[in-house]
Amino acid sequence: MSGPLLQAPALEMLKLLEELAAFSAPGPGVTRLLYTPEWSGAQSFLRKRMAALDLATGTDEVGNLYGSLRGRDPQAKVILTGSHIDTVVNGGAYDGAYGIAAALTAVDYLRRTFGQPRRTLEVVSFCEEEGSRFPLAYWGSGHVTGVYGPGSGADRSDADGVELLAAMKSCGYGPGSVDPSTGSPRSCALRGDIGAFVELHIEQGIVLEQSGQQIGVVQAIAGQLRFTVKVGGTANHAGTTPMALRRDAVAGAAEMLLTLEQTAAAAGDPLVATAGRLEVYPNTPNVIPGRVLFTLDLRHSEAAALETYCAAVLLEFEAIAARRGLELHITPTLQAAPAPMDSGLRSLLENICRSQRRTYRSMVSGAGHDAQLFSPRCRAAMIFVPSQAGISHSPDEYSSPQELAAGLDVLTAMLYELAYREE
Amino acid sequence: MSGPLLQAPALEMLKLLEELAAFSAPGPGVTRLLYTPEWSGAQSFLRKRMAALDLATGTDEVGNLYGSLRGRDPQAKVILTGSHIDTVVNGGAYDGAYGIAAALTAVDYLRRTFGQPRRTLEVVSFCEEEGSRFPLAYWGSGHVTGVYGPGSGADRSDADGVELLAAMKSCGYGPGSVDPSTGSPRSCALRGDIGAFVELHIEQGIVLEQSGQQIGVVQAIAGQLRFTVKVGGTANHAGTTPMALRRDAVAGAAEMLLTLEQTAAAAGDPLVATAGRLEVYPNTPNVIPGRVLFTLDLRHSEAAALETYCAAVLLEFEAIAARRGLELHITPTLQAAPAPMDSGLRSLLENICRSQRRTYRSMVSGAGHDAQLFSPRCRAAMIFVPSQAGISHSPDEYSSPQELAAGLDVLTAMLYELAYREE
Repeated sequence: MSGPLLQAPALEMLKLLEELAAFSAPGPGVTRLLYTPEWSGAQSFLRKRMAALDLATGTDEVGNLYGSLRGRDPQAKVILTGSHIDTVVNGGAYDGAYGIAAALTAVDYLRRTFGQPRRTLEVVSFCEEEGSRFPLAYWGSGHVTGVYGPGSGADRSDADGVELLAAMKSCGYGPGSVDPSTGSPRSCALRGDIGAFVELHIEQGIVLEQSGQQIGVVQAIAGQLRFTVKVGGTANHAGTTPMALRRDAVAGAAEMLLTLEQTAAAAGDPLVATAGRLEVYPNTPNVIPGRVLFTLDLRHSEAAALETYCAAVLLEFEAIAARRGLELHITPTLQAAPAPMDSGLRSLLENICRSQRRTYRSMVSGAGHDAQLFSPRCRAAMIFVPSQAGISHSPDEYSSPQELAAGLDVLTAMLYELAYREE
Repeated sequence: MSGPLLQAPALEMLKLLEELAAFSAPGPGVTRLLYTPEWSGAQSFLRKRMAALDLATGTDEVGNLYGSLRGRDPQAKVILTGSHIDTVVNGGAYDGAYGIAAALTAVDYLRRTFGQPRRTLEVVSFCEEEGSRFPLAYWGSGHVTGVYGPGSGADRSDADGVELLAAMKSCGYGPGSVDPSTGSPRSCALRGDIGAFVELHIEQGIVLEQSGQQIGVVQAIAGQLRFTVKVGGTANHAGTTPMALRRDAVAGAAEMLLTLEQTAAAAGDPLVATAGRLEVYPNTPNVIPGRVLFTLDLRHSEAAALETYCAAVLLEFEAIAARRGLELHITPTLQAAPAPMDSGLRSLLENICRSQRRTYRSMVSGAGHDAQLFSPRCRAAMIFVPSQAGISHSPDEYSSPQELAAGLDVLTAMLYELAYREE
């Protein structure tokens, strides 16, 4: 691909991204689920790299990893930057990992170029954001911001029935766990000392590519509601049960999923509705399915519109279940309100883009991000770079080296403004 | 439950059924899939029991188990009776196992009461019938009747990707494998010496219970068509992909499954259509599904009606896939023509019911059975007993001791007629 020659920091960042992608379960793309061996390997690797770059490293009770460059002013609140280390199943190499690799590269560059900052600069690798293994998302940033606390997730298990807290313990984390590198108990995850959080991320959508712009300055992150839906019928013989006498859980779920798609299309953008995971029991060719579980993921940038659609579609589900004589259990697994980004930081980012002569636009994020958990508690900002064809959560996820380097430059300038310049 | 006192043979049969049910994978009901440890355990247990009852035992290359009571006439063809040892996932204790337990009990009773028969009487425990682990059914009786031969199933794997032939080898079976009990190579599965096959089975439907009759004399077994349907779309981010730009494989599959249900209901009894197994990829809450696999099971007692419905519904699937821009691959996994039972054996069974003063009816079997593979090749007969509420392929599958004992009495009389009386 053509484009300006990349500078040393960008090349380091790209190399680090490649190294992180190697920590993956077998299969297409990158699969790095919370509290798995691949996940532990990636966090340990990052911690060694942070230490090698003279950052003070530490992990908290839930497995978030920090690399800190101490500032001169002990009173000043911390400038935090980074993203999440986990991925979806068969995801890409950029989602989350890019924000961590760029943050580490930027902080190292600033340290080597300008020495100690006024405010402490910290790089974070959040343990979990996707909700791909357990029906709970933002596990990392949620603990840092106090959305989750001790005991959260006690009722959640993965698809194999492994409990979240048991998986955490099996990786050596959890309340009172000891950090092997320091030999002392890990810190509680909650932080009260964060002044600002800046996250660099791929767009995971097609807006920047279509508008031909280099940088997206996020004005707000769409709200999100997630549910687990359980449909119960009667398992029975596929050959001897007349159609009229069936209580087929899959047929009921199929009607719900079609309704979901039709009502979401009717509601119009920016509403999106997805059933991404579906399990059938007993899942045998010659047995009428007795039970189906599926997940719901509903998003909109306006809270009222999201709530209205959600209430309407769940009512439709109940009507379908009632008409078919099926049992229906709907469990909320995630509620995230739309999250506005800090207006001061947004104009700072726009000034940086102008001074770097980069094309940029203000935009809404349809995807959820760790930054949304910080926005109610401290100043939060997000920077997007283009995703090829808008493809993400797929092995085909791709952003060019030049696009990734542009994001790194904007992030670096932003961290310089916040940690070295700002009074 | 009230009813006449059970005689000794019936009690032995019920005990044997209980013993067989203990060979199961964990979970509700009975799960005994082909070439698993539970399956091997059940076949070894049965073989020991057959030997203890003075039957000559043997296994063939694919894992069918025989217990033989030699007849006086070496020229006379064999009278074979039994059923299949495998189950569906979380199935019941009667489907298949009842036919084996009753056959073994009946042959033992006849030997002890009447000594050596004129024709050789053989009890068979077929290795597989359900198609629950691999997308291939009647693996046992199919080999005995020559429907399958060496190399069959080479392209089939289970849900975990284990190949059928590899699983067979791992259990010590396969061409040229040695029978550990005899030390000599196992026989080829194909049999040319069968004169008649008689199978006793639970109805797995609600007809006998509703009509209040004890015995069903099967006149024909419904034809069956099975397919694997693969729907291909594009995996993408659930938050950043507008509804209008999606190629959601689950939404497409949902429309197909709803069409399946509606067209099957419109076609009317005895047509039944079932999608029993469904797999979604990558199966993650916040990823639009890129791929779905589901199975189709279509049945009707008339070949023409079955073919007509099948062609029509598959055309509908293609139209849905085309309209949604989804890929569609449909692979046939089973084709079983409707199978008439031998009219002479049917009248013999009806005479026996009358002489035993049992209520009975002639009926079609909506379920597939091993007997249908014999009907084109030799005389075949099937005897049904009632299933409570018609429930089968479920842990709730149940037939009362009295109902099971009545079936045993009819089978015993039938085997006496065929092996001892018939010229």
